[in-house]
Amino acid sequence: MDEKRTEISELGEFALIDKLTDEVKLYKNETIKGIGDDASVIRQGDKVLLASSDMMIEGIHFDLSYYPLPHLGYKLVVANVSDIAAMNAIPTQILINIGVSNRFSVEAIESLYEGINAACKDYKIDFVGGDTSSSTSGLILSAAILGTTEEEMVAYRSGAGVNDILCVSGDLGGAYIGLQILEREKQVFLTDPEMQPKLTKYEYVVGRQLKPKARTDLIYEFKELGIVPTSMIDISDGLASEIFHIAKSSNVGIKIFEEHLPIDKETFETSAEFSMDPLTAALNGGEDYELLFTIKQTDFDKLKKHADIHFIGHIDKPGTGKILVTRNGAGVELQAQGWNHFSSKDHTSG
Amino acid sequence: MDEKRTEISELGEFALIDKLTDEVKLYKNETIKGIGDDASVIRQGDKVLLASSDMMIEGIHFDLSYYPLPHLGYKLVVANVSDIAAMNAIPTQILINIGVSNRFSVEAIESLYEGINAACKDYKIDFVGGDTSSSTSGLILSAAILGTTEEEMVAYRSGAGVNDILCVSGDLGGAYIGLQILEREKQVFLTDPEMQPKLTKYEYVVGRQLKPKARTDLIYEFKELGIVPTSMIDISDGLASEIFHIAKSSNVGIKIFEEHLPIDKETFETSAEFSMDPLTAALNGGEDYELLFTIKQTDFDKLKKHADIHFIGHIDKPGTGKILVTRNGAGVELQAQGWNHFSSKDHTSG
Repeated sequence: MDEKRTEISELGEFALIDKLTDEVKLYKNETIKGIGDDASVIRQGDKVLLASSDMMIEGIHFDLSYYPLPHLGYKLVVANVSDIAAMNAIPTQILINIGVSNRFSVEAIESLYEGINAACKDYKIDFVGGDTSSSTSGLILSAAILGTTEEEMVAYRSGAGVNDILCVSGDLGGAYIGLQILEREKQVFLTDPEMQPKLTKYEYVVGRQLKPKARTDLIYEFKELGIVPTSMIDISDGLASEIFHIAKSSNVGIKIFEEHLPIDKETFETSAEFSMDPLTAALNGGEDYELLFTIKQTDFDKLKKHADIHFIGHIDKPGTGKILVTRNGAGVELQAQGWNHFSSKDHTSG
Repeated sequence: MDEKRTEISELGEFALIDKLTDEVKLYKNETIKGIGDDASVIRQGDKVLLASSDMMIEGIHFDLSYYPLPHLGYKLVVANVSDIAAMNAIPTQILINIGVSNRFSVEAIESLYEGINAACKDYKIDFVGGDTSSSTSGLILSAAILGTTEEEMVAYRSGAGVNDILCVSGDLGGAYIGLQILEREKQVFLTDPEMQPKLTKYEYVVGRQLKPKARTDLIYEFKELGIVPTSMIDISDGLASEIFHIAKSSNVGIKIFEEHLPIDKETFETSAEFSMDPLTAALNGGEDYELLFTIKQTDFDKLKKHADIHFIGHIDKPGTGKILVTRNGAGVELQAQGWNHFSSKDHTSG
């Protein structure tokens, strides 16, 4: 056989995705948006239906030695809810497929479900189906989530216009630093199993990792305030990576300011323990599930006093690149090294 | 730790599923049917939305040593389309998550997509999203499919009434016998890699395994004929297993007749090569993706001359069990040993 073999790593993730999705054709008039945003958008009567899906694989996306199963179940739902929120829509139903090896007991699966059910309750979504099967190794989770809103309310990645204000909710980098803590404590435990993990000092950042929240609260607020973000994405792969997505989809430049990036005190201080610049955690740490979005200048007054929304930059003309203005005023090109396991936001509604 | 540990095998699949889904609560008025049928049913304006999902894991659900990737991609879509057909609805969009180890080349993933795209074209459904990530071992596929119909057209598992006629489309057991052929040729190949697989003699059964079809054609026919099956399920785990589902969901007895079971000549003859009763293949072989459904007696005339629909039995009073009447007139209790890898139709919309 002289068949050509190209390694995925050789082609690169984005080129692979472009290659794969290039051949995808749409047949239904109802499909407004297919692959290429946080969720697909489908016309349904006088509303639109949002649909997105995500997979989480043991050993790639999570480590059960420090990730309790109820938290994992909860996070699976949150990550999917966040994709619907990122479209400025409300999640409604979820389907969850579980592949599980015989390493797992009935009680273990029950505690996973406990987390799933708790998250469904918190976000008022219905767990309506899925599949449970055995797996050859470890735990595999896959979810598909549905959501709803009006067509004119949908916020795509592609709608950012020049001079729009770039906003981010919450704070950044915490989930990543929390993960570093959990990894470190795991190593300590492996060296000396008598040691109890020291997590109390790091409650906030560890909580950001183990108990993430999706920002559906902001979707309700936007509606009350009469705001439709001109573009939006959730921060699952890191701020820099998401900025690249908005810049590419909207065909614009983006400028952000280091001094405006929201970083929690605990994230800031704990970064030092890992000799890490907190800026790196904020830019490239993932899984914060905050929202990155743009608004028109005319909407600024409605949000300017919002305690949990930060104005980190603005949209610039096409071709101006993705620029970080540092505290000393220098402009540096952002790198989207991302926080992903060859995952593929671009490919996906996910 | 004195935590209780119950093995999944100890509890049994169905008890596990009951246990897990017992705690699931619904919050949305729009959710008409959650877990427990081939797909969930959600009110959307004057229509209903159907949603179902399924996972396929290498080493559990497929063996790539004889399952070509384009066929696998095609089958993934078909298996999901079949779940929507089983609700008497039309599939519309699909989301697909793929987990792939670095064993796979770009070309391999492309050929998987080729099959996905071909199936989407054949069933006129839109591939609208999903996720691609790396996996620790092998290939993991998960799909979620959407469909649509009118609320009064939906066929649940639960609607079978006493004296309804039990019907099945196509023929049974072929996909299972095809799998036995593929497994046998694999063993031959492992023993002597110079040997070429002998498949031409088994074209039909191997085709049933490698090129399954979902019976959306019948959904269109039912509509034309003005028939809504009183209950319906697709045959993915084997006839006996699906009969159990309908009997349980509808709370009825079911009687089927061996002489009426449709078995293709090639399935019949090839069974002998494996010293297998073709009846066993028909009852317990899976993945035929035919439809098992019930109709009212008054609808019989509309279907009686249909070349591809077979009347295999009828619905009986509750408590009469699931009875197979053999060719010699004996009645035996059906066993739902199923054709599954601890998969869980009951649990699921899948």
